[in-house]
Amino acid sequence: MDDFRALLAETADRVTVAMDALLPRANGPEARVISAMRYAALGPGKRLRPFIAIEAGRMIGADETGLLRVATAIECIHAYSLVHDDLPCMDDDDVRRGRPTVHKEYDEATAVLAGDALQTFAFELLADPDTDANPNRRLELITKLAQASGAKGMVGGQMIDMSADRIDADINIITRMQRMKTGALIAFAAEAGAILSGATKDDRRALEGYAHDVGLAFQIRDDLLDAEGSLDETGKAVGKDENQGKATFVTILGLEGARDRARRLAAQAKDHLEPFGESAKLLRRAADYVLERRS
Amino acid sequence: MDDFRALLAETADRVTVAMDALLPRANGPEARVISAMRYAALGPGKRLRPFIAIEAGRMIGADETGLLRVATAIECIHAYSLVHDDLPCMDDDDVRRGRPTVHKEYDEATAVLAGDALQTFAFELLADPDTDANPNRRLELITKLAQASGAKGMVGGQMIDMSADRIDADINIITRMQRMKTGALIAFAAEAGAILSGATKDDRRALEGYAHDVGLAFQIRDDLLDAEGSLDETGKAVGKDENQGKATFVTILGLEGARDRARRLAAQAKDHLEPFGESAKLLRRAADYVLERRS
Repeated sequence: MDDFRALLAETADRVTVAMDALLPRANGPEARVISAMRYAALGPGKRLRPFIAIEAGRMIGADETGLLRVATAIECIHAYSLVHDDLPCMDDDDVRRGRPTVHKEYDEATAVLAGDALQTFAFELLADPDTDANPNRRLELITKLAQASGAKGMVGGQMIDMSADRIDADINIITRMQRMKTGALIAFAAEAGAILSGATKDDRRALEGYAHDVGLAFQIRDDLLDAEGSLDETGKAVGKDENQGKATFVTILGLEGARDRARRLAAQAKDHLEPFGESAKLLRRAADYVLERRS
Repeated sequence: MDDFRALLAETADRVTVAMDALLPRANGPEARVISAMRYAALGPGKRLRPFIAIEAGRMIGADETGLLRVATAIECIHAYSLVHDDLPCMDDDDVRRGRPTVHKEYDEATAVLAGDALQTFAFELLADPDTDANPNRRLELITKLAQASGAKGMVGGQMIDMSADRIDADINIITRMQRMKTGALIAFAAEAGAILSGATKDDRRALEGYAHDVGLAFQIRDDLLDAEGSLDETGKAVGKDENQGKATFVTILGLEGARDRARRLAAQAKDHLEPFGESAKLLRRAADYVLERRS
C-alpha cells in the first residue's frame, strides 16, 4: 500500500467512526430498520466521496467536525442508493462490497425502509447547527444535496439506467446518465467542502470542474472493472452489463478507447486544480487513484 | 356534502394545484420517474394533513404561499410512504384511492425510485426561501419533518407494522406504532403551520396535542373502516388486517371499544384548541370529520 492508499484508508476509518457515532442506535421495536441502516452505511467502503469532501474542505480551511458530518450525510445518501439499487426489482444484486446485500442479510421490506431512513437521516444531519453555525450554508448544503440526489440527479440517472433505451444508448446518453447517476453526488462532495470553507466562487467552480471529471472517470473505470474484473477483486458480481446487453462506456468506446477517455478525464480533472497549487496534491493523487483502483 | 366537506374539498383542490405547479415536469430521458412521482402525488386524496397545516397556520396568521409549499412537502412525504408501503415486499396492495398503485401502473423499480425522489423533493421544497424568508424557520421545518418521517417516526412505525411481533401486539405497542407511523406526520402538519406563523410555545404545544389526538383517532377510524368497510367505499382493499392475523385497535378493543376510543380522542383533540376560541372552528370540525369519514 503506497502513501496515498494508506491516507485514503485512514480517512475512511475516521469517516466510519464519525458515522458510527452519528447514526441512531438500534433500539426499540423499530431496531431492525436501524440495524439495517447501520449495516448498509458502516460496511467496508473506499469512502471516496467523503475523501473528496474532506480534502476539498481542508484545503480551503473548513472545520473538521463539519466536514465529517457532511461526509456522513454523503455516505448515507450513497448507501441508500446502493441498498435500493441492489433490490430484486432493480439490479438484483446479492453481493456488495464482499458481503450479502441488505435485502439478503435482512429482507426486502427492511431494505426499502432502511434506504428511506438513510436518506431522511442525511438531511436531518445537514440541518443540524453542529454541521455549520451559519444557517444559510446548511440550507445551501441541503438544496445542493437534494438536487444531486433527486429526480434530476442520482435517482433520474438510475431511472435512465433501468430503462429499455439503455440497450442502444449512444455515448451522449451514457455520459448524461452517468453524470446524473454517479457524477452529481461526487460533484456535491467537492462542492460541500467548498461551501463549508466559505470558498470563493472561482475556487468553487474549479472544484466542481474537478469533481465532474473525476466522477466520470470513476464511472468509466467501473465499466472497465465490470468488463475485465473478477468477483474476487471487485467484491460484486461482474460481467453483468454485457450479460444484460447494456450499453456502457466499454461497449461503445472499446476497452482501449474507454481507458484512454478515463485517462484524459483524470488529466483534465487535475488541470482544474491548478489555482490551488501544492495544497491540492492529494486531490490530484485521488484523480490518479480513480484510474488505478481494482475495486 | 355539508359545508365542512365542501371546504375540505376546496382546500384539497388548492393544494393539488400548488403541487402540480411545484413538482418537476416529466421531461428528459428520466421522464418516467417524474411521471410516476406526479401520478402518486397528484392522485385523488382528502389532503387532510395539508388541511391541518393550512388551517393551523391561517388561524395564527401565516402566509398562504408558504403554507401551500409546506402542504406540498407533507403530501410528497405522505405519497412516498404510500408508494413504498404498497410495494409487493411490503403491504402488496394493487389499488390505492381507487386507482392502480404506482408499481402496478408503472413497475416496481419505478415505484421505488419515484418514492425516493418524492422524499428528496419534500426537503428541497422546504429549503427554498419561498417557503419562508427566515432561514432558521426553514431549518426547523426540515429537522422536524426528518424526525417525523425517519427511523424514529413514520419509517420506524412501518417497520414495527411489518414485524412479526405485530401479531400479538398489545394496545401499548399498537398505540406506539401508530403514533410513529401516522401520528408523527399529522402532528408535523399542525406544527408546521405553527412554525410558519411564528406561534408562541403555548400555541405550538396546544396544536401538537390536538394533532397527536387527531392522528390516533384517524388511525383507529382506519382500522374500523378496514374491519367494516367495502373496497367500493374506501378505494382500497379491506379486511386485510384480519386476514393477515394482525393486531389492530379493533381486534384488541372490539368494534364498540375502538369507536369509543376514537370518540374520546376527538373530544380530547378539541379540548386542546380551547385557547384559540372561535378561530379554531374548522380544526374542531376536522376532528369530527375524522370520526365520520367513510374512506
